[in-house]
Amino acid sequence: MTRIAAVQLSPTIANVRANRDMAAAAIAGALADGADVVVLPELTTSGYVFDSVEELRSVALTADDPLFHEWATMAATRPGSVIVAGFAESGADGALYNSAAVVTAAGVLGVYRKVHLWDQEKRFFTAGSDAPLLVETAHGRLGVMICFDLEFPEWTRIAGLAGTEILAVPTNWPHVDRPDGERAPEVQIAMAAARVNRMAIVCSDRAGAERGVAWNEGTSIIDADGWVVDSVGPGDGIAWADIDASLSRDKRLAELSDAFVDRRPDLYSKFTRSPS
Amino acid sequence: MTRIAAVQLSPTIANVRANRDMAAAAIAGALADGADVVVLPELTTSGYVFDSVEELRSVALTADDPLFHEWATMAATRPGSVIVAGFAESGADGALYNSAAVVTAAGVLGVYRKVHLWDQEKRFFTAGSDAPLLVETAHGRLGVMICFDLEFPEWTRIAGLAGTEILAVPTNWPHVDRPDGERAPEVQIAMAAARVNRMAIVCSDRAGAERGVAWNEGTSIIDADGWVVDSVGPGDGIAWADIDASLSRDKRLAELSDAFVDRRPDLYSKFTRSPS
Repeated sequence: MTRIAAVQLSPTIANVRANRDMAAAAIAGALADGADVVVLPELTTSGYVFDSVEELRSVALTADDPLFHEWATMAATRPGSVIVAGFAESGADGALYNSAAVVTAAGVLGVYRKVHLWDQEKRFFTAGSDAPLLVETAHGRLGVMICFDLEFPEWTRIAGLAGTEILAVPTNWPHVDRPDGERAPEVQIAMAAARVNRMAIVCSDRAGAERGVAWNEGTSIIDADGWVVDSVGPGDGIAWADIDASLSRDKRLAELSDAFVDRRPDLYSKFTRSPS
Repeated sequence: MTRIAAVQLSPTIANVRANRDMAAAAIAGALADGADVVVLPELTTSGYVFDSVEELRSVALTADDPLFHEWATMAATRPGSVIVAGFAESGADGALYNSAAVVTAAGVLGVYRKVHLWDQEKRFFTAGSDAPLLVETAHGRLGVMICFDLEFPEWTRIAGLAGTEILAVPTNWPHVDRPDGERAPEVQIAMAAARVNRMAIVCSDRAGAERGVAWNEGTSIIDADGWVVDSVGPGDGIAWADIDASLSRDKRLAELSDAFVDRRPDLYSKFTRSPS
């Protein structure tokens, strides 16, 4: 079993020092409490609602920033543990990316750059163009995508077909109204993506209003059957779940049905077309 | 506004006479109560749990069966109205299909043959190989697929990209356990498909145990935001909703975001591959 901690917290816009301290405290606490995989929100180190590209650039980190070495040192305190967190990345190409890093005791295992940028992010960030990240860890095949990526079923399917067992999704879900008693709509989408791909999904959302933007505070851990095992609710907190990643390897649904084998890729290619 | 009636009922296995009477009563009642679009379950005319191919063949109908003329006559009592229902189809090619017909006062507008056959259906039916049906009606562009088709996000995406405004999904959802307070998992999947494609989805499930098989009784009408507007619950009944089909034409999500424009089809083609 993999003990997962999905951390919901409240970064401060453009204050890397405050955010790195907050993240370090959350990671240390989760590891001390037995977490094998710790997932933090999108743009944990920078906040989200930027005033300008200059402001964003001032808080963007390279993927070899000492921050990640600090996290690697913390991961070393719990053998096999994995940390996933979003950060504003300053690329070697000079571009700014909305990225997430996967860190273990060995260092940065991989960086994913968000492919589907949401709304005003397009004014600040360059979109990534690589597949969902997939890394082998001591706790199974861990996939990574970010926030709005999750709302494209093509993207979660790609992650599933590639063999993702646990999909970590750092998010910042801006508040949307929902009917009483309903979950955040993105959680509904994650539940469906988990079930149709038979993979666990961990969404870590943020809390705390920022420059007038509130958040859905929808941090949730979803199993490969598509059920929410734990969630945080309003405010800072951690959702916990013990997930058997190996269950994600079995795509059978019934004696003669299989979520992947029953696909009709020839028909999907034939009929998928641009919107009419 | 389109007034939708999603009918949940209990067919009798292999008894076309009883089922056609039951369906006719349900259709007449719904039309009398103001329904513009009436959706009935998968295999309404035949039942689902067949003993043998011979039994299925004995209750399979051709698409020009007098039954559909009877429904067309009923549709004529309410101008513009549309009836969608599942039936066991005897094809001109001699094959048996799990099909759904769209009927208006003008007759059968189209027939869809289920592409993704569930479990034991593979022993009885031939899978279809056409795209989700899309027909122009007085109440918008109506799409049709059947039951397990819905669990392939590629298929709902194809329907959405083709311009479906209201997706009718006749279903027979065999019972699956779910946590207390949760909807049927297929409804979760439908909610996500509705929201990411911004199209309304109408799922008509069946009730009544049949040869030891119980059903989720999950009949639900979902709007283009992905919220369940009405559902039936256990037993026979009708879910009702007034849906503005024109809302499905607008795929915008925010000032700079659009559910379809923001897709990255080049990357989907590049990275979608067979399971590893």
